[in-house]
Amino acid sequence: MIVVMKVGSAEREIDGVLERLKELGFKGSLSRGVERTVIGVVGQTYPELADELAVLEGVADVVPISRPYKLASREFKPEDTVIKVGNVTIGGGNTVVMAGQCSVDTEEQMMATARLVKEAGGHILRGGAFKPRTNPYAFRGLGEKGLQILATAREETGLPIISEVMDPRDVELVARYADILQVGSRSMQNFALLDEVGRSGKPVLLKRGMWAPLQEWLLAAEYVLAQGNGEVILCERGIRTFETSTRFTMDLSAIPAVKRLSHLPIIGDPSHATGHRYLVEPMAMASVAAGADGLIVELHPNPDQALSDGAQSLTFGGFRQLMERVGEVAKAVGRPLAAAS
Amino acid sequence: MIVVMKVGSAEREIDGVLERLKELGFKGSLSRGVERTVIGVVGQTYPELADELAVLEGVADVVPISRPYKLASREFKPEDTVIKVGNVTIGGGNTVVMAGQCSVDTEEQMMATARLVKEAGGHILRGGAFKPRTNPYAFRGLGEKGLQILATAREETGLPIISEVMDPRDVELVARYADILQVGSRSMQNFALLDEVGRSGKPVLLKRGMWAPLQEWLLAAEYVLAQGNGEVILCERGIRTFETSTRFTMDLSAIPAVKRLSHLPIIGDPSHATGHRYLVEPMAMASVAAGADGLIVELHPNPDQALSDGAQSLTFGGFRQLMERVGEVAKAVGRPLAAAS
Amino acid sequence: MIVVMKVGSAEREIDGVLERLKELGFKGSLSRGVERTVIGVVGQTYPELADELAVLEGVADVVPISRPYKLASREFKPEDTVIKVGNVTIGGGNTVVMAGQCSVDTEEQMMATARLVKEAGGHILRGGAFKPRTNPYAFRGLGEKGLQILATAREETGLPIISEVMDPRDVELVARYADILQVGSRSMQNFALLDEVGRSGKPVLLKRGMWAPLQEWLLAAEYVLAQGNGEVILCERGIRTFETSTRFTMDLSAIPAVKRLSHLPIIGDPSHATGHRYLVEPMAMASVAAGADGLIVELHPNPDQALSDGAQSLTFGGFRQLMERVGEVAKAVGRPLAAAS
Amino acid sequence: MIVVMKVGSAEREIDGVLERLKELGFKGSLSRGVERTVIGVVGQTYPELADELAVLEGVADVVPISRPYKLASREFKPEDTVIKVGNVTIGGGNTVVMAGQCSVDTEEQMMATARLVKEAGGHILRGGAFKPRTNPYAFRGLGEKGLQILATAREETGLPIISEVMDPRDVELVARYADILQVGSRSMQNFALLDEVGRSGKPVLLKRGMWAPLQEWLLAAEYVLAQGNGEVILCERGIRTFETSTRFTMDLSAIPAVKRLSHLPIIGDPSHATGHRYLVEPMAMASVAAGADGLIVELHPNPDQALSDGAQSLTFGGFRQLMERVGEVAKAVGRPLAAAS
Repeated sequence: MIVVMKVGSAEREIDGVLERLKELGFKGSLSRGVERTVIGVVGQTYPELADELAVLEGVADVVPISRPYKLASREFKPEDTVIKVGNVTIGGGNTVVMAGQCSVDTEEQMMATARLVKEAGGHILRGGAFKPRTNPYAFRGLGEKGLQILATAREETGLPIISEVMDPRDVELVARYADILQVGSRSMQNFALLDEVGRSGKPVLLKRGMWAPLQEWLLAAEYVLAQGNGEVILCERGIRTFETSTRFTMDLSAIPAVKRLSHLPIIGDPSHATGHRYLVEPMAMASVAAGADGLIVELHPNPDQALSDGAQSLTFGGFRQLMERVGEVAKAVGRPLAAAS
Repeated sequence: MIVVMKVGSAEREIDGVLERLKELGFKGSLSRGVERTVIGVVGQTYPELADELAVLEGVADVVPISRPYKLASREFKPEDTVIKVGNVTIGGGNTVVMAGQCSVDTEEQMMATARLVKEAGGHILRGGAFKPRTNPYAFRGLGEKGLQILATAREETGLPIISEVMDPRDVELVARYADILQVGSRSMQNFALLDEVGRSGKPVLLKRGMWAPLQEWLLAAEYVLAQGNGEVILCERGIRTFETSTRFTMDLSAIPAVKRLSHLPIIGDPSHATGHRYLVEPMAMASVAAGADGLIVELHPNPDQALSDGAQSLTFGGFRQLMERVGEVAKAVGRPLAAAS
Repeated sequence: MIVVMKVGSAEREIDGVLERLKELGFKGSLSRGVERTVIGVVGQTYPELADELAVLEGVADVVPISRPYKLASREFKPEDTVIKVGNVTIGGGNTVVMAGQCSVDTEEQMMATARLVKEAGGHILRGGAFKPRTNPYAFRGLGEKGLQILATAREETGLPIISEVMDPRDVELVARYADILQVGSRSMQNFALLDEVGRSGKPVLLKRGMWAPLQEWLLAAEYVLAQGNGEVILCERGIRTFETSTRFTMDLSAIPAVKRLSHLPIIGDPSHATGHRYLVEPMAMASVAAGADGLIVELHPNPDQALSDGAQSLTFGGFRQLMERVGEVAKAVGRPLAAAS
Repeated sequence: MIVVMKVGSAEREIDGVLERLKELGFKGSLSRGVERTVIGVVGQTYPELADELAVLEGVADVVPISRPYKLASREFKPEDTVIKVGNVTIGGGNTVVMAGQCSVDTEEQMMATARLVKEAGGHILRGGAFKPRTNPYAFRGLGEKGLQILATAREETGLPIISEVMDPRDVELVARYADILQVGSRSMQNFALLDEVGRSGKPVLLKRGMWAPLQEWLLAAEYVLAQGNGEVILCERGIRTFETSTRFTMDLSAIPAVKRLSHLPIIGDPSHATGHRYLVEPMAMASVAAGADGLIVELHPNPDQALSDGAQSLTFGGFRQLMERVGEVAKAVGRPLAAAS
C-alpha cells in the first residue's frame, strides 16, 4: 500500500502519517519526488487500512498494491486447481459441459433432458430446485422434490448433478443430493451462504455477481476457500451494462484475466449471459476459444413451455448441434471435450 | 403485454400465437399495421409470460406494458405510506435523519455518537452489529454484543435504532433489539432474507442493489410487502457505473422517479454512495432537494480510527454542520426536519 | 507515477526498469517492502509513460499519482474561475439559469420562449441551430437561419445566447452569433472541435461525455484551455448506466467532486440527463443544492409540438414554477439566483 | 409504434391521442384490454414521434416496435454485404486480419511491421497518422507524413492500408492514401465526419462508441449508408463498464447480435478492447469463434518503445503465434483465414 501525499504537504503531515503507521504496527518507507512525497507501507496490510490512512491530514490518495485475496491467487498457488466430480475432471485441460433445465419441472421432462445430455456427450446435469426469482409471485422451484428427481436422473444416467442453493439453511439439504453446489449471481456476496457452502464439503460453482469487478468475485471465492473448501469453480454469466439488446453483457475477457490472477477453474454460462437462444451457441464457442474450462447451458424438451427462462433454453436439436460445434473449437484450441462421464 | 410479430409473418404464425394464448387462458386482440401485426394480450399477465411467447414462431418481440409489482405501486395505493417509529414519522412530509456509526465498536464511542446525534437534532440512531464485508478477513461486527450497546444508547437518548441484518437466521435476534431492520445493498435480492424480514413485524429499510434498475428494486420491496409487512422504507445508496472517483454513482433521479411509481417513503445515503467525507454534505443537501423523505449518514467520534468506512464518516463537527445546512434546504423545499424524537 | 514490481521480481528486472527510466530522462526512487519492491518515478511524467513502463519485465502495475491535466486543475489555479457574459457572471457565487428551446424552430415560437425566459428571471437564452441527432433522418436544425433568430431574440430581450457547434468548420459561424459556444456530450472528445473552440475567443460550455470519467472530462477542458481560452464552463448532463427508467443517470456527485479538482464553474442539465419533464424540477433543485453554479433547461411554448426533445421540455408554467422553487433552494444554500441580465 | 394509455384513462384522452395521430398523418388502431387501452400507430413512423406522443394526456408509455435504421437492417437487405479491398474480401465467409501499428512512427519501424504482417499471413495493414488522444499534450500522429510511409509500405508489400480520420476536413486527404477509412470509437457520433466519409467513395471501418447500444451504432452506420456509401465494416472494440481490470469490456455477443440485425460485416479489435497484451490472443480467438468476419490488432517491432498503446501491442513473435492459433479456430468454425493478399 502506498500513501500519496498532497502536493506541498507539510513535514508535520508526513510525520503524522508515519506515526500513525507505527501505531498500527507498520513501517513507512519515505520517497520524496519533485512534486510529491509518497510513503510505502511495509507490513501485511488489509483493505480497510486504505480508508484509515486516506483520512489523515495531507494525504491525497492511498493506493493498494497487493491484492486483498490470498488463497484464491495464483501467487499463492501457481498450479491450476483441478476438481474431480464423479468421473469428470474440471480444470485439467479438457472442456466440460454442464447442461440441463433451468428449473426442474416434471420427472418426465427432466428424465428426457438428462438422457439427451448424456447421449449428446454432456458431462454434468444441471437442474434448479430452488430458484431465485426477481418477482415474488413467480415459480420458485420444487424444493426437495426437485432434488429427488435430479437424484433419480443421476442414478439412471450416471451424470453427476449440480443444483443451486440460495439460503444458508438449505445448504445441508442440497448438499445431501447434489454433487456440486451452485451459488447464483445474486448470491455472490451473500456472505452467510458463502460460509456455509465453504463448510459443506462439496465443490462450489460460484457465479459472478452482475455488479462484481474481478477482485470482488475472487474475494467471494476467498470466503469459501477460507473455510477450508478448495474446490471452487468460477462461472462468468454476464455483467450489467447499458446494453439492453442482450440480457447481460458476457465479459469473456474475464476468462483469461481470471486465469492469470487465480488458479481456480472457470467456465462460461452463455444462456443466462445473453438471454437469447440464438446467441447461446456462438457465445459457447467463444467462451471455449477464450480459454474456459467448460460451459453451463440450458436446454428443455419443450422450451416454449419451460417454467422459467424458456427464451434462452436450447431445444434438444440445438444442444446436439452446440456439442458438435463446441467440440470442434475445443479441439482447435487444444482443450478437447472431456470423455463422457 | 403486447406480442409484436415479425415483418411479413405468416397467418399460420399469427394463429399459432392466438392459439397458445387461448391455451394459457388469455385472449389475443389483433391489430394489423402497414408493416407488422401486433397482438395485445388480454388478461392478468405475469413477467414469465413474455419469455413463453417470445419463443413462438414469427414473434419478433414481446413488450410488457404493465408493471410486475403491484402492492408497491402507486396505482395500487395512491396515497403516500407513512411509517411511525417511536415518535418519529417517516414519509409524512418532513425530513428524517438517521445517523450513527457504520459499525458499533466500543460502548464508549457508540454512546458518544448517540448523544451527538440526539443533541444535533438527529432522529434515529444507526449502528452495524452484523457487517457485510467483501473481504473475509475484515471485521464482521460485534453481533449481539453490538445490538446490546445500541439498546443501551436508545435507553439513554430515546432515539429509535436501526441495524442491518444479513442472514435469515439472524432476523429474529436483530428484530428483538432494533426498531428498524436494514437490508443492505448486497442483500437486495437475498430472497430468503426478504421473506423473513417481511414476517418480522418490524419496519424494513431496503437499500437499492448497486446493480438494480428501479423495477427490480420495487420487486424486492414487493417481496416484503407480499408477506404482509407494509412498512418498507427505500434507500438510494449509489449504483455501480464506470466512474471511479466516487465509490458508487448516487442516482438522485431515482428519488423523484420512485415517488411517482410507488407510495413508499425513500431516503438517501450519501455516505456509502460517495465514499468520501467531503461529498457527504453536498449530496445530503441534494437528496433532500430532490425529494427524499430523509437521510442516513455515518459519523464517528474519531473517524480515522473507525473499524469500517472511516473515510466516509463525518466528524462530530461535520455532522452538526450537515444538520444545519440540510435543515435550511429542507425548509426551502417545504419538508422541514422532523421534530427531534 | 509509481512502478510496482511483481512479488519476487529479480534484481535484473529492477535494474531494467531503473535503466529505462534513466533513458527516458527520469530518476527512479527505490523502495523495498516485505513482499514487493516499488519504484517512484521522479520527473514530469505523462500518461503514456504508464504504458511504456507496464510492459517491462517484472513490472506488476504502474500507478499514476499525479493528474494528467494541469491548466484545469485547482492545484494549478486555486481560486474559482469567474466568467462574464454580457451582464451575467458565471461561477462567482450566484446561480445562473440558461433556458430555451432544444431546437430553434419558428421565429414566433423562439421569441415567445425568449420573452418568457427573460420575464421569469432567466439569465441566458439557449437555442439549437445545429442539432446532433442519432438518426440521420431526423431534423438537424435550421443552421444560420436559427442563429439569426437567436440574435433577434437577444436584441429584443437583452439575454446573451448560447448555441451548440458540432463541426469544426462551423465554429467561426456560430461564434459570430453566439455569446457562448456549446460543445455537446457526443462531441466531448471531438478533439478537432475542441481545438477550434479553444481558438474562438468565446466562452465554451463543455458537456460531459456520457461515457466520461471525471478525468477524461477535465482533459477535454484542458484541450480548450491549452489553446489559450480560459473560459470553460462544465456541464453535467448524465452518464450512461444500466438504468433505463431515466434517459441517462445524472451524476450529481460530479458537481462537488469537480469543484474540488478544478477551478472551472460547473452547471447541471436536468432536461437531457433525465429525459422526463416531471424530473426536471426536482433535479434542477438538487443540482443547485449539490453546489452547481447554474442550470441549463429546456422549455417550449408548446412542448408537444417541439421539433426535438419535447418530452423533456417544460411548459411555460412549468418553467416559472421551476425558477421559483430553484430560487428558494439557491437562497438556502447561499448562492442566490443572479440578478436578471 | 404503440401508445399505451394509463390504467383508467378517460375516453377524452383516448380521443385526444387518436386526433393528434390523425393530424400527424397516421392512423390509430384501438385495442382495449382488461386494464388498459393501447393504440397501434399505423404509418411510417420515426423515433421522435415517441416523444411527441408520450407527452399527451393519459399516455403511460410509447413503445417503438420497428427499428429506426433501415439501410443497415437485414430486413432491408437480407444477404450479407461483401466488401472487396484490393484482393481481399471482407464479409464473404473468410476471416480477414488487419494488423499494424497504433501510430506510424519511423519509416524503418513501419516497414518492418508491414513485412511481418505480410509474411505472417495478415491481409490489411493498419497505421495511425492522425491519433485521437485524451490528453492534449500527447503525441497526435505524423499526419500526411505518416500516410506517405503507409503508402510506401503498401507499395512494397501489396497490402491494402487502413488509417483513421477524425476531422471532416481531413477526409479528402486520408482518402487519397488509405484503402479503408477508419472512424474511431470517440467519433462514432461525429455526424459531420460520418457524412464526409459517406461521401468519400472509400470503405469505412466504423468502430463502436464505448457508450453505444447496438441501435445507436447501427444508426451511425446508417449515416454513412444514407450518403450512398454501402461499404461499412463494423468493429467491436469494447464498451465502458464498471470493470477496470481491462481497459474496456469487449462485448462479443454484439457480434452474433449484429449479424442478426444487419447485413454489414463485423470484426473484433481485441487490442483496444482489453488494453493488455496477454489478453489479445485469447480474445482474438474468441472473436472469431463468436462469428467475426475478421480482426484488427496491434503489433510493434519494439512495443516497449511504441509512441502509443505499447502495453497492448503484440511483439512480432506474438503476432505470428496469434495468426497460427486464430487460424486453427477460424478453420474449426468454417470461416478459414482468407488467402494472403
